Amino acid sequence: MERLIAHPGRLSIAYFLVLICLSTALLMLPASSRSHTFTDFNTAFFTAVSALSTCGIAIVNTADFWTYFGQAVILVSIQMGGLGVMTFASLITMTISRRIRISQKLLAADELGASKLSEVQSVITVVLVCTFSVEAIAFFMLLPALLRLNEGNIINSLWEAVFFSVASYNNAGFTPDSAGLYVNSWGVGLPILLSAFVGTLGFPVILNIVRATRRHDGPRHWNLHTKITVVTTLGLVTSSLVWFLLVEWNNRTLFWNSDISSKLWHALVAAVMPRSAGFDISWMPHVTEQTKLFMSMIMFIGGGSASTAGGIRVTTFATLILVCRASFMRRKDDAVFGKRLHTQTAIMAIAITATCGTLIYVASLILLTITQRSLTDILFECCSAFGLGGYTLGIADPSNPATLYVLAALMFVGRLGPMTVAYAISKPQPPQAVRYPAESIIVG
Amino acid sequence: MERLIAHPGRLSIAYFLVLICLSTALLMLPASSRSHTFTDFNTAFFTAVSALSTCGIAIVNTADFWTYFGQAVILVSIQMGGLGVMTFASLITMTISRRIRISQKLLAADELGASKLSEVQSVITVVLVCTFSVEAIAFFMLLPALLRLNEGNIINSLWEAVFFSVASYNNAGFTPDSAGLYVNSWGVGLPILLSAFVGTLGFPVILNIVRATRRHDGPRHWNLHTKITVVTTLGLVTSSLVWFLLVEWNNRTLFWNSDISSKLWHALVAAVMPRSAGFDISWMPHVTEQTKLFMSMIMFIGGGSASTAGGIRVTTFATLILVCRASFMRRKDDAVFGKRLHTQTAIMAIAITATCGTLIYVASLILLTITQRSLTDILFECCSAFGLGGYTLGIADPSNPATLYVLAALMFVGRLGPMTVAYAISKPQPPQAVRYPAESIIVG
Ligand SMILES: [K+]
Ligand SMILES: [K+]
Repeated sequence: MERLIAHPGRLSIAYFLVLICLSTALLMLPASSRSHTFTDFNTAFFTAVSALSTCGIAIVNTADFWTYFGQAVILVSIQMGGLGVMTFASLITMTISRRIRISQKLLAADELGASKLSEVQSVITVVLVCTFSVEAIAFFMLLPALLRLNEGNIINSLWEAVFFSVASYNNAGFTPDSAGLYVNSWGVGLPILLSAFVGTLGFPVILNIVRATRRHDGPRHWNLHTKITVVTTLGLVTSSLVWFLLVEWNNRTLFWNSDISSKLWHALVAAVMPRSAGFDISWMPHVTEQTKLFMSMIMFIGGGSASTAGGIRVTTFATLILVCRASFMRRKDDAVFGKRLHTQTAIMAIAITATCGTLIYVASLILLTITQRSLTDILFECCSAFGLGGYTLGIADPSNPATLYVLAALMFVGRLGPMTVAYAISKPQPPQAVRYPAESIIVG
Repeated sequence: MERLIAHPGRLSIAYFLVLICLSTALLMLPASSRSHTFTDFNTAFFTAVSALSTCGIAIVNTADFWTYFGQAVILVSIQMGGLGVMTFASLITMTISRRIRISQKLLAADELGASKLSEVQSVITVVLVCTFSVEAIAFFMLLPALLRLNEGNIINSLWEAVFFSVASYNNAGFTPDSAGLYVNSWGVGLPILLSAFVGTLGFPVILNIVRATRRHDGPRHWNLHTKITVVTTLGLVTSSLVWFLLVEWNNRTLFWNSDISSKLWHALVAAVMPRSAGFDISWMPHVTEQTKLFMSMIMFIGGGSASTAGGIRVTTFATLILVCRASFMRRKDDAVFGKRLHTQTAIMAIAITATCGTLIYVASLILLTITQRSLTDILFECCSAFGLGGYTLGIADPSNPATLYVLAALMFVGRLGPMTVAYAISKPQPPQAVRYPAESIIVG
């Protein structure tokens, strides 16, 4: 047990692989499908990966294709995916930040990566309490509106409230109503939006804010990670909001109701959701090419670290911006909020961004080869899969199974993060006996 | 004079702006155009920027549209652009590497950026000698084949030999023969290819190799910059070669002659030229979408530092790879060839790549909005302009002048490099009195 915990990266890969097998097998059963026949492997596998990674790209209509049993499998998968991610991400983070602290103090390398069992238990407890609290709040906020929309059908309303509250906090855009438009009513839309927003911040941020608030401390007392995550997230949401209002103002599919408050609401949904949900996707294929490219970037950036959102994470993006600013201003330190970042944080941010960029690039090359779709659509779908956005333009095509596997691979890496995968397969190096001399080269 | 030299970045911007004005004015004159009328500003301006930046995207046929006088203006522009870039890049590099050495030794900041006049004179001398030597060699290699192709027309052959030798070393793909296919004959193609290849390595690399060879020292004694540039360049050329042979094997426009040695030759031309020339562009619009995306990346990476090629430069790309490798292997240092890189080199590489990536992204968004072209075409053209590749798919469209200005801006920044622009407009910061405490954040 101690040995397993010492490698949270490997443990998380194993966790997801086992759950993908299990969930695929259950979804293939006749009990899961409304047609009462075996579902083909590709569809079941892709749906399982999409649910467990909390991505939410659906290749069949969730409410029409799957029975309540099938939907329950999807729901449990989403929940297990979300819980798993938050737990493992926290453990890996503890390992890495311990590693950074050790390398700063030049301690021995064999102290790396050893979390204590008691620490693990307390992490799991906090994750569980945090998750179920937010979901419970969302559940009770959703119930009245759903009862009204379902005209008093209590069973249906309860089911949908459970489904929406789990799916929204975990940012998986599977939706139990087949038209997929409940999210457009205020009573359902607002709790979903809030819960999804909280979900994208990430568990360490929620915890930090809750603790600070309990101590009656204001935002000034939040830690650096929380400050950077909140500011960057709000910045991204605001720029998306402005983008949608400016570029898509005359889009009749997105803004089919022309009064201004309705337009604002839909732009807000469109701005919050790509980071990362995807409940209402009816308007998506009708946006302009430049909006697709814009949203690709927003989804590539994704949400907070150790959150149910994907992408390279907002803190990675913020680190890059800080590094660029310091470099261009010829400052020695990338300082922000009266603190500076560790050099190793910057280096890790680059490694993550470069690897993920390469991944999207290679996946796009493959999809350009095996489909006839345009690069904007392909880039959008790749970023949606990797960033766990949950939007689809139909590149994920059951009649062309290769596309499903490319996208499933993106979801898997997007879910675990490239660092987790790399750390799981690489061995910690012994401390280098010789440090090579430095030499300048010319870049740029 | 000393004050100007202390700011080589500002000096180089001024140099290029003055030459752009001059060259545009001369190209607008009736003497420059075969129609003997004034050429419109947009065409003259774009051609001037394209020549001075040694990019080589032509919106009119060089041999058919311009008189010998106009061609001479273009030729001198290319030569002045190439010489300017190599000189200024060397001066800026000296300033920056002095700055790195100073910051390592924590010397005073007011010693920054002050090159001595004598140093500047010796840099200019070496650049001139180096340039004219390579060009003279190319000239004498080209002459016999051109005499044969021109059936003994000596004046024409001499002119074309001068034009090709200057254009190829400076990597500007303007071509004095209107069909643009001389490059496909061995006698003309091989000297051009070699000269363009030498040009992309960059002046510091050429100098280092020449000096090492004079001392009878092998590659092991080259400096780190030379080793990284040569290895990365060869790696990129090889992967392009393999790509073209694999993906475009059945492309009848590129490989219209089906015998294997001819296919190899054309694949080699296609592999060397995007980094960066563009003499024969007839086959370019007929490649597959995935080849366009592949070549976009190759052109984005570009050539060597302080060379006539553009892009983020191969050393920047290599630095990113080394940083990623070190990060994934959990090594402290990004060591290569028995040396490690300065952290500041890595930070600068990130700043350059992130800025250039953002630039291409924004330019693509604008071009997606103002044209009806696909993202692959737009990305290709943007990378060709920024990477000074010289290929065009016709996005640069005189009937839509906005496209010309977007691409000209990309060429300008691609030519000067984002660091030059940033350094020219920013002030060196005084050494920070307080160093903020470091705090870990979670990335990825
Ligand atoms: K999602
Ligand atoms: K060129």
